[in-house]
Amino acid sequence: MPLKFDLSAADLSSAELASLKEMRTRCARRILLSTSLAASGHPGGSLSSLDMLLVAYGILRHDPKNPRMEARDRFVASIGHISPGVYSVLAEHGYFNEEDFLAGFRRTGSGFPGHVESIVPGVEWDTGNLGQGLSTAVGMAHAFKLKGLNNRVFCLMGDGEQQKGQIVEAIRHAVKYKLDNLTVLIDRNKLQICGSTEDIMPQCMQKLYGGLGFNAVKLENGHDCNAIYKAMRDAYRNISGVPTVLIAQTVMGKGISFMENKAKYHGSTLPADDLAKALAELGVANDFEQWQEKRKQPVSGKSIMPPRADYPSVQAGEPIVYPVDKPTDCRSGYGNALTSLAQANNKAGQPPVIVGISCDLEGSVKMDGFHKHSPQAYLELGIQEHHAAGTAGAMSCENFVTFFSTFGSFAVSEVYNQNRLNDFNHSNVKVVATHVGLDVGEDGPTHQCIDYLGLMKNYFRFSVFMPADPNQTDRIIRHIAVQPGNHFVGMGRSKTPTITREDGSIYYDADYVFTPGQADWLREGTDATIITYGALTPACIEAWKLLKQAGKSVGVLNMASLLPLDKDAVLAAAKRGPIVTVEDHHVETGLGASAAAVLIDKGLAPKMKRLGVKQYGGSGKPSDLYKQQGLDAESIAKTVLELLG
Amino acid sequence: MPLKFDLSAADLSSAELASLKEMRTRCARRILLSTSLAASGHPGGSLSSLDMLLVAYGILRHDPKNPRMEARDRFVASIGHISPGVYSVLAEHGYFNEEDFLAGFRRTGSGFPGHVESIVPGVEWDTGNLGQGLSTAVGMAHAFKLKGLNNRVFCLMGDGEQQKGQIVEAIRHAVKYKLDNLTVLIDRNKLQICGSTEDIMPQCMQKLYGGLGFNAVKLENGHDCNAIYKAMRDAYRNISGVPTVLIAQTVMGKGISFMENKAKYHGSTLPADDLAKALAELGVANDFEQWQEKRKQPVSGKSIMPPRADYPSVQAGEPIVYPVDKPTDCRSGYGNALTSLAQANNKAGQPPVIVGISCDLEGSVKMDGFHKHSPQAYLELGIQEHHAAGTAGAMSCENFVTFFSTFGSFAVSEVYNQNRLNDFNHSNVKVVATHVGLDVGEDGPTHQCIDYLGLMKNYFRFSVFMPADPNQTDRIIRHIAVQPGNHFVGMGRSKTPTITREDGSIYYDADYVFTPGQADWLREGTDATIITYGALTPACIEAWKLLKQAGKSVGVLNMASLLPLDKDAVLAAAKRGPIVTVEDHHVETGLGASAAAVLIDKGLAPKMKRLGVKQYGGSGKPSDLYKQQGLDAESIAKTVLELLG
Repeated sequence: MPLKFDLSAADLSSAELASLKEMRTRCARRILLSTSLAASGHPGGSLSSLDMLLVAYGILRHDPKNPRMEARDRFVASIGHISPGVYSVLAEHGYFNEEDFLAGFRRTGSGFPGHVESIVPGVEWDTGNLGQGLSTAVGMAHAFKLKGLNNRVFCLMGDGEQQKGQIVEAIRHAVKYKLDNLTVLIDRNKLQICGSTEDIMPQCMQKLYGGLGFNAVKLENGHDCNAIYKAMRDAYRNISGVPTVLIAQTVMGKGISFMENKAKYHGSTLPADDLAKALAELGVANDFEQWQEKRKQPVSGKSIMPPRADYPSVQAGEPIVYPVDKPTDCRSGYGNALTSLAQANNKAGQPPVIVGISCDLEGSVKMDGFHKHSPQAYLELGIQEHHAAGTAGAMSCENFVTFFSTFGSFAVSEVYNQNRLNDFNHSNVKVVATHVGLDVGEDGPTHQCIDYLGLMKNYFRFSVFMPADPNQTDRIIRHIAVQPGNHFVGMGRSKTPTITREDGSIYYDADYVFTPGQADWLREGTDATIITYGALTPACIEAWKLLKQAGKSVGVLNMASLLPLDKDAVLAAAKRGPIVTVEDHHVETGLGASAAAVLIDKGLAPKMKRLGVKQYGGSGKPSDLYKQQGLDAESIAKTVLELLG
Repeated sequence: MPLKFDLSAADLSSAELASLKEMRTRCARRILLSTSLAASGHPGGSLSSLDMLLVAYGILRHDPKNPRMEARDRFVASIGHISPGVYSVLAEHGYFNEEDFLAGFRRTGSGFPGHVESIVPGVEWDTGNLGQGLSTAVGMAHAFKLKGLNNRVFCLMGDGEQQKGQIVEAIRHAVKYKLDNLTVLIDRNKLQICGSTEDIMPQCMQKLYGGLGFNAVKLENGHDCNAIYKAMRDAYRNISGVPTVLIAQTVMGKGISFMENKAKYHGSTLPADDLAKALAELGVANDFEQWQEKRKQPVSGKSIMPPRADYPSVQAGEPIVYPVDKPTDCRSGYGNALTSLAQANNKAGQPPVIVGISCDLEGSVKMDGFHKHSPQAYLELGIQEHHAAGTAGAMSCENFVTFFSTFGSFAVSEVYNQNRLNDFNHSNVKVVATHVGLDVGEDGPTHQCIDYLGLMKNYFRFSVFMPADPNQTDRIIRHIAVQPGNHFVGMGRSKTPTITREDGSIYYDADYVFTPGQADWLREGTDATIITYGALTPACIEAWKLLKQAGKSVGVLNMASLLPLDKDAVLAAAKRGPIVTVEDHHVETGLGASAAAVLIDKGLAPKMKRLGVKQYGGSGKPSDLYKQQGLDAESIAKTVLELLG
C-alpha cells in the first residue's frame, strides 16, 4: 500500500520514515537498472530529486487506478530527463508494473520514453525542453483558480534550468495572479552537465524568486524526508496569495558513494561493473543480466495512455455577417467573434469556458470586447510570449478553450518551440495571430510574420487557417472554438473588402459553414487558376477582373484551409490549366511549395508560377510593399498572362 | 557643431545645458512631425527617452562622417520602435539630412524604417523584437573585452520590455564575464501599450538587476540632463568589473502637456490639430503641410548604408581525413575541425579570430578541444539559448568567426526568432547543431530536431549544409569558417561509416573541396535516383546495394548543400527516371518539398516519392525509429522498386 500522509501531523512517523527509506532503495535500484539497461539516460538527477519525489507523492491527491481523475493534484516534472526517478516512484505507487518499465525504458514503442511523456500513467505533461515546465504548472494552477477548485500543483525543476529566461516570465505570472496553489520544487544539486552551476552561470535562486515575490524557502537537506514533508505540507496548505518555491540542497547521485557530487552522472549511466557495486551498496540483488535477457523480447506497450480526449462543449453563437460596402479588418472580425463566444459560453457565477491570453496587445489583437465581457477569463501576461504560449497550452488541457493572441512574429516565430511542446502534448490551443505578412506595413520586417505556414507545417497536430475577410474570420473562429485540437488562424492588420460573388452578393454569408480542407472557388474560370488566401485575396479578385477585361477566363481559388490543404482543388486546378499561387508569405515555404508537392505526388506538372515574398519586407504602406514584391493585382494578372502565353 | 562633453567635468556647463535644451526642442519637433506625417510610429517613448539619447550622444565616441569607424562606441536601441527619437538625434549630429528623414520616415525604400535598422547611418543594429537588444549589446561588449579595446557599449531599453525572460539571460552573461564596459539605460516611463507596467506585469528592476550582480543606479529624473550626464559619465568610465544599469524615471510623451503619462501615445500619433497644439507648445513653426507635400515626391533613399562587409581573414587549416574502417560521429569531425581552426587562427597574445559559444553542452557538441586550445575564446553561456543565439550574432558582426553550437532543438527550434534577427542584421554566425533528426534516438521527440530545414528555409541569408560523414563535415566546417555570412550545419548524434566510392576508396578524401550548391553523385545509376543527405546517406548506399542485387541501376545523390540547393542535379535526376528523396526530417518541409518545387518550376513531373519523418519520433534506438518511419535501407529500396514498377 503506497504511502499517503496525514497532513495534520506535525512530523512524519517513524513508520512512515522507514517506509520511505525502503521505497527509496527500491526506486534507486530501478533508476540505476533502467539507465544501465538502456545504456542511456540520467541517473544522477533522478537520485538527487528522489526523496522529494517520494514525499511529494505521499502528499499529493492522486489515484494510480484513475490517473486522470478530475480531483487529482498535478505534478509537473520540468526536468523531463529524470524520467527514471519519476517512473520508479510511479511504479512504487502501482501506476504500472515495474517489469514494463525496466524491460521497456527507452525502447521504441514501450511507453517508457527517455524524457517524461504523458503516455506514461501518472505523468501529466511531456517535457524535455528545460525551462518550459513552470509555464505548464502555472497554467494548471491558474486553471484551478478559474474553476474555483482547490487542486494543487507541484513543479519539480532543476537548478541548471533556472538559467532559462522563460522561468522568470512564469514566476511573474504566478505572482501577479496570486497562484498560491503552486509550489515549485528545485533540486539544487549544484551541478549541470558541464560542471558546477556556479561556474557555468552564477545565479541566486533565493534572491530571484524572493525578489520577484515568491515565498522562497531554503531546504538545507533535500534528502531529509521529514524536513521535506514539513516544507511541502506547508506549501500544500498555503492560502496566503503568494506562491512557494522550495530550494532543496541535494546531492547529485545521492546514495551511491562513487556517484555523489559528480557532474558526469547527469547523463552517464553505469557500466555493468559499476552497477554491480552500486546495487551492492543498496543491498539489493544484481539482476542486471536477467533484465538484459528480458529486453530482447518485444516491448509490451501495454501501459500506454491515450491522449487526453476531454474537451468542453462549446456554443458557436450566432454568426456575424459583415456588409459589402464597409471594409473591416479581420482582426475586428476575430474580436467580435470572440466576444460573441464569450457571451454564449462564459456565464456569470460559473467558471469560464473560453479563456483569452495576450501579451500587452489587447487592443491591437481586438481582445478588448472579450476582456470587458469576461474580465476573469482574460489573462494579460505582459511581454512574455514564451511563457504565455506555454501556459496557454497547459490551460487548454484543463478544459478551457484557450485563445492566445498576439502579432504573428511573436505568436509563431518567437514561440515556435513552445507551440511545438504544446503539440507534443495534444493541447487544444487556439493561436490567433493578427498582424501577419507584409500587410503589417510600416512596422517593418521584425513585425512582418512571413513564415507562419513555413513554421506551422513542421508540427503534426496544428491546423492552419487564413481567412480572406471578416466574414470568413467569424466562421473560422467559431469553428476552432467548437473543435478540439491545436489551431492557428492568421490575419493581416489592415481593413479589407468583404469578399463577394461575381454578382456582388456576400460570398461568406450567413449560410456559409467553414470546412477544414475545403477551398472555395471565388471565381470560376477555364483558362487558368489563381490560388490564394488571406490578405491578398482581394488583389487576386482584382487581377481576375483585369484578366477578364483581357479576355481570359481565370478561376480564383481561396485556400483558407492551408493545413489540411484541399489537395483535390489543387489537382482540379492543374487539370484546367496554368496555376499561379499568390501569398503574403515567404515564397519558398508557403502554399506554393505545398501545392508543388501535391502536384508532384500525383505526377502532374502544370505550368505554374509561385508568387510570394522574395526578400525581407521594408517599412512602408502595404500596397507599396506588395508592389515591390510583385504581389499587386497588375503583377498577378501579368504573371497569369505570361503563363497563358 | 554637435555637443561632445568633456568627461573630466563634474557637471555640464550652463552653455551645454542650454544647447541640450535647444537640441531637445528640435528633436521633439522631428519626433512629432515624422510620426504625424507617417500617421504611424511611436512618439511617446521617443519623447521619454529623448534626454537620455541626447546626453548619450554627447558622451559616446562616434563620428557622423564615419559611422562605422572602428574606434566608435556602440549604442544599441533595444526599443527599436523609438526610431523617431533615434533618427532625430542622429540628424542633430549630422549623420543625415533632416529632410530625408522627415520626408522618408516609414516610406518604402526611404532608408528610414519604422523600427531602427542599420541601413540608417549611426544605427548599429536592427531591432524591433523587444528583449533582444541587450543580448546584442552584451555580445559587442564581450567582443571588445576579447579584443582588449576600451570601446564602450550603451543599450537603451524600455521598461515594458524588461518582462522578456531573455533579458535575465543577458544580464547573467554580462555579470559572469565582468562586462563593465556595458551600460544599460532603462527608460522607466512606467507605461506600456496596454497601460501601467505595474498593472500589466509587476516587476522590480532594481532588485532584478541588483540581485543578479549589476550596479543598479536609479535616476530620479530621467529628464534632468546634468543628472543623466553624471550617471552616464560614471558608467562610461567604470572599470569595476561590474556592469551598470541606469534606471531613469521618465515621463511618456515628456514635454507636450497633453501627451504626458498617457499610454496611448506609445503607438498613437498626433492628428493635425493636436500636432499644431504640440508644436505651439514647443514654440516652433508648424510646417506639417509643407512636409506632407514633400512626401508626395519619390523617396530619395540616398542615405542608405550598405550592410557591413568586413570579415576576418581566416586560415582553413589542414583537412583531416577519416579512414574507411572506423565509423566516427560527425560531431567529432566538427570538434576536430574547430580545434584545427583554432590552432591555425587563434594565436597566443593576440585576440582570437574564432570564437565558440555553447550552452552547457561543451562535451556533447565536441567543443572541448577548442575550449582547451582557446579558453578565452570559448564562451559557456549556460542553458540560455535565446540570449546565446542573439549574442553570437552580435559577436559575429564584430569580426569574430563565431560558432554557436548546441543540440538542433535548441540551436534552431528554440531560437528561431533570434536567428531571424541575426539574419536581418547580415550577421556572420555559424550555427552548428549536433543531435538533429531521429538519429538522436532515445532522448525522444523534444530532442529530435526534425525541422531544421523547414525552419531555416524561411530566412533569406542562411546557408544550410548537412554533411554525410566526418570527412565532409571537416571540409564544410572549414568552408563556413572562411566564408562570410550565416551558415547552418547540422549533424546527427551517432557514429557513421565513412562514405566511400564504389571501389571502397574514401569519397570525401584529401582532394575534396566543398562547394555550396553542388551535390555529389555517390553512386551512378540510370534507372532511378535516391536523393539524400546527412545521417541517412549510409542507409541509401545500403539500399543502392540491395537494388543492385535486384538488378537495378540506381544513382545516389548526396545533397549536402540544401540551401542553396543543387537544382541542376535535381533536374538531371528527373531526366533519368523516378526520384526518391530520403531524409531524417519532417517529410513535408525538407528536401523532398524543395525538390518538388524545383521540378514544378521547370514543368517536370517524374515519378517521385518523398520519404521522411511522418510523425513525431519515439524514444528508442535510431535504427528502430528509422524502421518505424520507413527510413531503413529495405524500405528505401522497396520504395524505389515500387516506383520502377
